[in-house]
Amino acid sequence: MIKPRTMPGVMELLPRDQLAFQRMMDVIRRNYERFGFLPIETPVMELSEVLLTKSGGETERQVYFVQSTGSLAQGSAPELALRFDLTVPLARYVAEHEHELTFPFRRYQIQRVYRGERNQRGRFREFYQCDIDVIGKDALSPRYDAEIPAVIHAVFSELGIGPFTIHLNNRKLMRGFFEGIGIADAERQAAVLREVDKLDKQGADAVRAALTGKLEVAADAAERILTLVGTRSQSHTDALAKLAALDEGPPAQREGVAELRAVLELVHALGVPERAYTLNLSVARGLDYYTGTVYETLLDDYPQIGSICSGGRYENLAGHYTKSHLPGVGISIGATRLFYQLQEAKLLPAATSTTAVLVALFDDAGLPTAVALATELRAAGINTETTVEPRKLAKQMQYADRAGIRFVAMCGDNEAARGIVAVKDLRDGSQREIPRAELAAALLAAMA
Amino acid sequence: MIKPRTMPGVMELLPRDQLAFQRMMDVIRRNYERFGFLPIETPVMELSEVLLTKSGGETERQVYFVQSTGSLAQGSAPELALRFDLTVPLARYVAEHEHELTFPFRRYQIQRVYRGERNQRGRFREFYQCDIDVIGKDALSPRYDAEIPAVIHAVFSELGIGPFTIHLNNRKLMRGFFEGIGIADAERQAAVLREVDKLDKQGADAVRAALTGKLEVAADAAERILTLVGTRSQSHTDALAKLAALDEGPPAQREGVAELRAVLELVHALGVPERAYTLNLSVARGLDYYTGTVYETLLDDYPQIGSICSGGRYENLAGHYTKSHLPGVGISIGATRLFYQLQEAKLLPAATSTTAVLVALFDDAGLPTAVALATELRAAGINTETTVEPRKLAKQMQYADRAGIRFVAMCGDNEAARGIVAVKDLRDGSQREIPRAELAAALLAAMA
Repeated sequence: MIKPRTMPGVMELLPRDQLAFQRMMDVIRRNYERFGFLPIETPVMELSEVLLTKSGGETERQVYFVQSTGSLAQGSAPELALRFDLTVPLARYVAEHEHELTFPFRRYQIQRVYRGERNQRGRFREFYQCDIDVIGKDALSPRYDAEIPAVIHAVFSELGIGPFTIHLNNRKLMRGFFEGIGIADAERQAAVLREVDKLDKQGADAVRAALTGKLEVAADAAERILTLVGTRSQSHTDALAKLAALDEGPPAQREGVAELRAVLELVHALGVPERAYTLNLSVARGLDYYTGTVYETLLDDYPQIGSICSGGRYENLAGHYTKSHLPGVGISIGATRLFYQLQEAKLLPAATSTTAVLVALFDDAGLPTAVALATELRAAGINTETTVEPRKLAKQMQYADRAGIRFVAMCGDNEAARGIVAVKDLRDGSQREIPRAELAAALLAAMA
Repeated sequence: MIKPRTMPGVMELLPRDQLAFQRMMDVIRRNYERFGFLPIETPVMELSEVLLTKSGGETERQVYFVQSTGSLAQGSAPELALRFDLTVPLARYVAEHEHELTFPFRRYQIQRVYRGERNQRGRFREFYQCDIDVIGKDALSPRYDAEIPAVIHAVFSELGIGPFTIHLNNRKLMRGFFEGIGIADAERQAAVLREVDKLDKQGADAVRAALTGKLEVAADAAERILTLVGTRSQSHTDALAKLAALDEGPPAQREGVAELRAVLELVHALGVPERAYTLNLSVARGLDYYTGTVYETLLDDYPQIGSICSGGRYENLAGHYTKSHLPGVGISIGATRLFYQLQEAKLLPAATSTTAVLVALFDDAGLPTAVALATELRAAGINTETTVEPRKLAKQMQYADRAGIRFVAMCGDNEAARGIVAVKDLRDGSQREIPRAELAAALLAAMA
């Protein structure tokens, strides 16, 4: 006998939690589609050579390699590996199918990715990412950057997990500002960005110490940086005013200001309420990959959860695979971790079942009536389960209640003779009699 | 520069094909839910020790093993492997969570599985399986076996891929019959079943030769087997009559007949039209795993595709993991291969986009109007893409047409001044003017 168990670091849910998770995923997918994004899926395995274009980094150390039985027996090096994000597969996909795609290419992708993370509560080795990206050929207007917060707003509004704020910044603005105070080297700028990104978590003193310490930034320059990255807007008008005050310095800074202004204006035109977004000049995103607009999204009442949806603008998606210049902008929701955190914070409502009705059965003779009733309900589009073996009614009620099924439909001899069905609504405990011919319509009305 | 490519044996689709695939998957999922099945998902990796309970078989040779970078560097044997079906993970899941589940446990699971198949056209190393199973604790009424054809019928009717027939048999009936003609040994019965399963593909002569040859079945017994397995019903009444004629012989045979009769009667009561199912006593399913009802589903006009949905009743799901007796019944749709075959046979309609409307843009000044229009449509639940950079109208039309977007909404200065929107329907080429306030309602009506 083998003990049934999974590896550590994976999330496996019981059906009712799985339903809640699926609802969350459906909301994300529906809103991605609402904005005209199209689905793609890529294989979970990529050729190692294709996946691991940058060798030896932190990422590679966390990769899972894959080998067939035959390859393992021969002692070969693994030629396959599991994807660790959806960005590298997207780059490979766009480069491979470049001549079959229409640009700007708007894709969403909702799949699992794999990382050999240290085993730790809340850290997952298998988790869902839900990504959208718009990829341009040669060029991509910053206007696309403005659609992204509208998508984020639509997703998290419909999820209904409380107030949230989308924090916006622009890395050109930041790099231009650094250049203006004498930090001109790109590597050094990136190092400064990595430090200021920690402002909200570690506080100003820690960032100041890091800047003036290991990064050797002069004290007055460090103060100017801290003042800059302390910038938060209180409203749309305030954001534009704060940007206007920064419209100076080197060309990169002014270009960043212009991009951010265009993005904010279009976000506003797209109907995103101004309480849902803010200028936050400490947002930098760790990855050097980003070159323009960057986004983070925080729950107003649960800042400790950290960003629940992040991303930004990048200069070139697939330089490892094609000579074509493919700029893009995108975001990712780490759905497995998000779900875990929302559950921990009790922000997710208990899911009702996808099954709306249980047709009860009292005795064997009632079976044809029960299945005919269930068939009628299903034909009306109502998800219905039938009890096919007679059990005590209390047991059937208990089963429905535990499973999160809202209605129990009963049609015994008495009800059948009178042409009615008795329906118990487990949500409020009420019970009523409905003429059989009106049952589906009455249930659909109650569910609407 | 690395050549962007995937491993052989995986299916990667362009967005429009991905949409068609997703539609197919949505139909399957929706119909599984319609019958009260609940979703579960399991990790793609299982512990090798848990997954490979039966060592050394054909299955194990096709397994993909997984190792993290660290484990690989240490030269350890892989502790993880990718699942090769959804049945073993289900067994592990039910055994692991037995005390948290309610029985009968009705689950569906739609996930990818992995097999190191020989590289061959139409064979996949990564493919979706869409499974439903009902698992009982200690016992499970054969009535559950009758719901399965109703689900199959709902799925393939809605997929709209032409007429199909669900073929039913019962392995108890078969084994009882073999016993009655002197083939009493269980191993030998299983061997005979494996041969008769080939009847439709290889013909009676080949099966006769195999029976009287390597299996050493006497010539008259072989003839009786061939007569039995040639049984096909032409209608519901015919099926019951053919069963009645077989209601004799050893207890197992009579039990099998009784089970099949009960299943057929309930299938009928569930409203499955009688042209959609048939008794076919040559259906055996290769796996010894099955112990009662077995199913196959064939497209009437494309029998060469083989069974598109198969399964059956099994005696005990999780004997490797728990002492509990867990009988079940289930089916699987191999969706990746099915999609490939339906595409080859041109049975799938070209998918329209999930995006219903493209809002065109003529000049920069029109951007606020265009995005406001798009926002209104999205608020009404219409999936809408906006052109955010002005392009020639012909280019925008071409883009929408190629992407499978049905409507192009145009609101230039002229239209805006008149309070209308011009809408081109690319399905029939017609164009009409709609008052802006009525646009969403008019489009929803046209789409309904």
